Amino acid sequence: MSKKLTHKRLALLVEGVLVRGDAEEEVVGLNSIQAAVEGEVTFLGNTRYAAALLTSAASAVLVPEGFSGDVGEKAVIEVENPTLAFSQVIKFFGPDPKPVAWGVHPLAVVAESAVFDPQRVCIGPGVVIEDEVRIGSGSVIGAGCFLGGGVVMGGDCFLHPNVVIRERCVLGSRVVIHSGSVIGSDGFGYELQRGRHQKIDQVGVVQIDNEVEIGSCTTIDRARFGRTWIGEGTKIDNLVQIGHNCVLGKHCVIVAQTGISGSSTLGDYVTMGGQVGVAGHLDITSKVLLLAKSGVTKSIPEPGAYTGYPARPLMEGRKMMTYPGRVPELLERVKQLEKRLAALEKADS
Amino acid sequence: MSKKLTHKRLALLVEGVLVRGDAEEEVVGLNSIQAAVEGEVTFLGNTRYAAALLTSAASAVLVPEGFSGDVGEKAVIEVENPTLAFSQVIKFFGPDPKPVAWGVHPLAVVAESAVFDPQRVCIGPGVVIEDEVRIGSGSVIGAGCFLGGGVVMGGDCFLHPNVVIRERCVLGSRVVIHSGSVIGSDGFGYELQRGRHQKIDQVGVVQIDNEVEIGSCTTIDRARFGRTWIGEGTKIDNLVQIGHNCVLGKHCVIVAQTGISGSSTLGDYVTMGGQVGVAGHLDITSKVLLLAKSGVTKSIPEPGAYTGYPARPLMEGRKMMTYPGRVPELLERVKQLEKRLAALEKADS
Amino acid sequence: MSKKLTHKRLALLVEGVLVRGDAEEEVVGLNSIQAAVEGEVTFLGNTRYAAALLTSAASAVLVPEGFSGDVGEKAVIEVENPTLAFSQVIKFFGPDPKPVAWGVHPLAVVAESAVFDPQRVCIGPGVVIEDEVRIGSGSVIGAGCFLGGGVVMGGDCFLHPNVVIRERCVLGSRVVIHSGSVIGSDGFGYELQRGRHQKIDQVGVVQIDNEVEIGSCTTIDRARFGRTWIGEGTKIDNLVQIGHNCVLGKHCVIVAQTGISGSSTLGDYVTMGGQVGVAGHLDITSKVLLLAKSGVTKSIPEPGAYTGYPARPLMEGRKMMTYPGRVPELLERVKQLEKRLAALEKADS
Repeated sequence: MSKKLTHKRLALLVEGVLVRGDAEEEVVGLNSIQAAVEGEVTFLGNTRYAAALLTSAASAVLVPEGFSGDVGEKAVIEVENPTLAFSQVIKFFGPDPKPVAWGVHPLAVVAESAVFDPQRVCIGPGVVIEDEVRIGSGSVIGAGCFLGGGVVMGGDCFLHPNVVIRERCVLGSRVVIHSGSVIGSDGFGYELQRGRHQKIDQVGVVQIDNEVEIGSCTTIDRARFGRTWIGEGTKIDNLVQIGHNCVLGKHCVIVAQTGISGSSTLGDYVTMGGQVGVAGHLDITSKVLLLAKSGVTKSIPEPGAYTGYPARPLMEGRKMMTYPGRVPELLERVKQLEKRLAALEKADS
Repeated sequence: MSKKLTHKRLALLVEGVLVRGDAEEEVVGLNSIQAAVEGEVTFLGNTRYAAALLTSAASAVLVPEGFSGDVGEKAVIEVENPTLAFSQVIKFFGPDPKPVAWGVHPLAVVAESAVFDPQRVCIGPGVVIEDEVRIGSGSVIGAGCFLGGGVVMGGDCFLHPNVVIRERCVLGSRVVIHSGSVIGSDGFGYELQRGRHQKIDQVGVVQIDNEVEIGSCTTIDRARFGRTWIGEGTKIDNLVQIGHNCVLGKHCVIVAQTGISGSSTLGDYVTMGGQVGVAGHLDITSKVLLLAKSGVTKSIPEPGAYTGYPARPLMEGRKMMTYPGRVPELLERVKQLEKRLAALEKADS
Repeated sequence: MSKKLTHKRLALLVEGVLVRGDAEEEVVGLNSIQAAVEGEVTFLGNTRYAAALLTSAASAVLVPEGFSGDVGEKAVIEVENPTLAFSQVIKFFGPDPKPVAWGVHPLAVVAESAVFDPQRVCIGPGVVIEDEVRIGSGSVIGAGCFLGGGVVMGGDCFLHPNVVIRERCVLGSRVVIHSGSVIGSDGFGYELQRGRHQKIDQVGVVQIDNEVEIGSCTTIDRARFGRTWIGEGTKIDNLVQIGHNCVLGKHCVIVAQTGISGSSTLGDYVTMGGQVGVAGHLDITSKVLLLAKSGVTKSIPEPGAYTGYPARPLMEGRKMMTYPGRVPELLERVKQLEKRLAALEKADS
């Protein structure tokens, strides 16, 4: 990295205000508070690291507006959101994004009935595109991806290598899916008949709306009929399981290894920490936050934070985790009461 | 969908009895109770939705025999199992299944020593089949699958795209495996020697019996020696982990994100909800039901339902989850006792 | 298997001492204690199986030095570590390892700027290797793997089929990665702005040091900037999630379905059972053992074993799981106290 940036230009880049330090001095790189060396710019993205700023070797730091902590001799730039502002710094100093090789790789296998502008999509080697797939312009299909018959995808989507989209699923525009994820595999449905599990056909689809991003090795099952539906702007992490006929609202955030069972619905702006589990056929209203490892066994009609298994409102759920710790004290106090009472009873008799 | 079906023919299709409604009126589609519009048939698969039937716009409904709820003006067809019966309706109205393109795709890489009838299997593009693999007739190997040397597979199997079956694993007939799953990767076994984890060779196999279905991104490790064994008719969901040398009996149902540690065995008809964990070297008898998120730390020799971590019989396990909620009441009652007792002691002295 | 081994040669092979049995008699195969038949050698790898040795049909057994249990008429060979010693027996009787087909498969897609010795690597069919990738000699890249631009890999690595390594990630030597795993997908980072989740660019890499082994369908996210780092000799099981900017020390063992959130760090020799969850931005010191299903919500500065959610030191954590079981007894004792006290109060008044 031989790029350089004066403090003044740095402030401009991040739309911030240089409140301390020499406008003409330069930063030559970026790093975290702990790892930064002289000449590098860092940022305070999490107040738990505020104390570490003083000892950081960084030469400049992005802080939230009004931050008053001691940062030593560093240049200080105030911004609205240091984490987001730092993205501009990363873009400036980071590696140039790889140019897209538009066109269809000769080792891709593309059905004649597929519809797209071959100059304005990128279809990688080993990709398989079945009948009547439609792909919007600007979309990139990474190496080894599979698009089943009738898949429809909007523009400017990005499928990383080895993604599978099964037949007839529908993606909006600017959808990003990371490697190894499987969209539209069969829902898990059987009926026990004469001692054997009879498969329930799963002929519905998955619909993924605009600007959804899906992590690696995540599985979203197709609906039995109708659709499993992921709302606009929702972000899903790695190794998440979404069951058949689930409906996720807009702008939800689902952290890794969470599982949502079939036919459950989420409102908008629902956030789930890692390893959360949601039982089937439940409704979770908008603006619910589920802490990591929660288990949801009933519908949640009220916004707010929840934790525990079964999940309860945050304060109650946290108390349920600490109450068992009061048991030894209770046992001792009851023992003392029994002793004192026995003495009194004896005296009384 | 321009297909149509009179109520009479609908009853015939689902092997049910039209107990209410005009035999010659027609349905033109299908949907869920909530989403159905006029002219569509729906079904009551879960009694929790019975009340919603009255307001549903569906024109006809499949109900269980003897159902007496108010469905409004709809035609009513009684069937033994509405969920299963509805599958016939889905088959009728649903998309025609894609015809299989029998034969070997020119971009598949197939060892000369592999044995199968090239006219009666479907080997997709990008498939790799190593030495001495045997594939039964009627089997479909989706794009991008890998079959290691010596894999043996029965007839009428279906591997969806990007499945990996490692060397020497054995599959029965009519086995279905969804995309991204890995069968026969090495068991996780090391011995610590002089501060380093020495790998324990894993030379056994995975054996998967007839009519097993395995979801997406599920991993089943090969045995150290001998076999990891999945019994006939067992159904495994997405993102499940089965450790080396595990034995699952027949007709088990393992829901998503469950993990079973090495060398544990399950009887027949064992059901595990999502995110269950089973420690290693345990035996779980037949007809055990483990609720979601349970953690099994001891063998379970008695059939029945279990919940919690550590897993306990259902009623006991549920109580263990509610008992902490009695602690505040206990604290208050003990406080009152202490106060009253002190008063009494004072009076007595 | 027509291989044979005298007890004498068997003892030699496992570097053990034949303490009982005829030196010239032969074993013709191997098996577990339960499954072994006459003529087979078995081993006592776990003391819980010691009692089963007496009834096992095996003809010979490897036991730990000084073992004094009753094994019946079997030949007995004492070794330092029976599990490890048995690996030699497995190697002897097991299938011959498949010879590697060195060279580049004609259906691999390799950038001209990639650097490796084409005679001394194995690049399978369907592999995609992008610009400026470097691969050390002795490395095997299984069918369908993807190596993004600038990936650097040491010698003697083994990537099983369908592994994805995203751009610029760095692997040491003798690294093994099983099928379906994804190294270097984007970290999960967004900032909410005007109601939409803005993606935080993730331009860092994943660095994996020598002798790391990673299971199937495991996901390790690239750093926002800098690196996500897996230390030498660490072993990671299937379906594990490692968040962006995590640092794992040397010789850690991470069992299946565990998730470690972004920016958390582990010392050396940290062991995590299955389905453990670790929150973000925490530090876990060396030689910490987390039992299965634990949830870590605070940094752990002291070595030792921990369990529960939130995770506590082992004894305390276990008690927290049993304390709720004392609640019914407490309720009864308090009820009795209340009754007796009321009687006393009445008598006193």
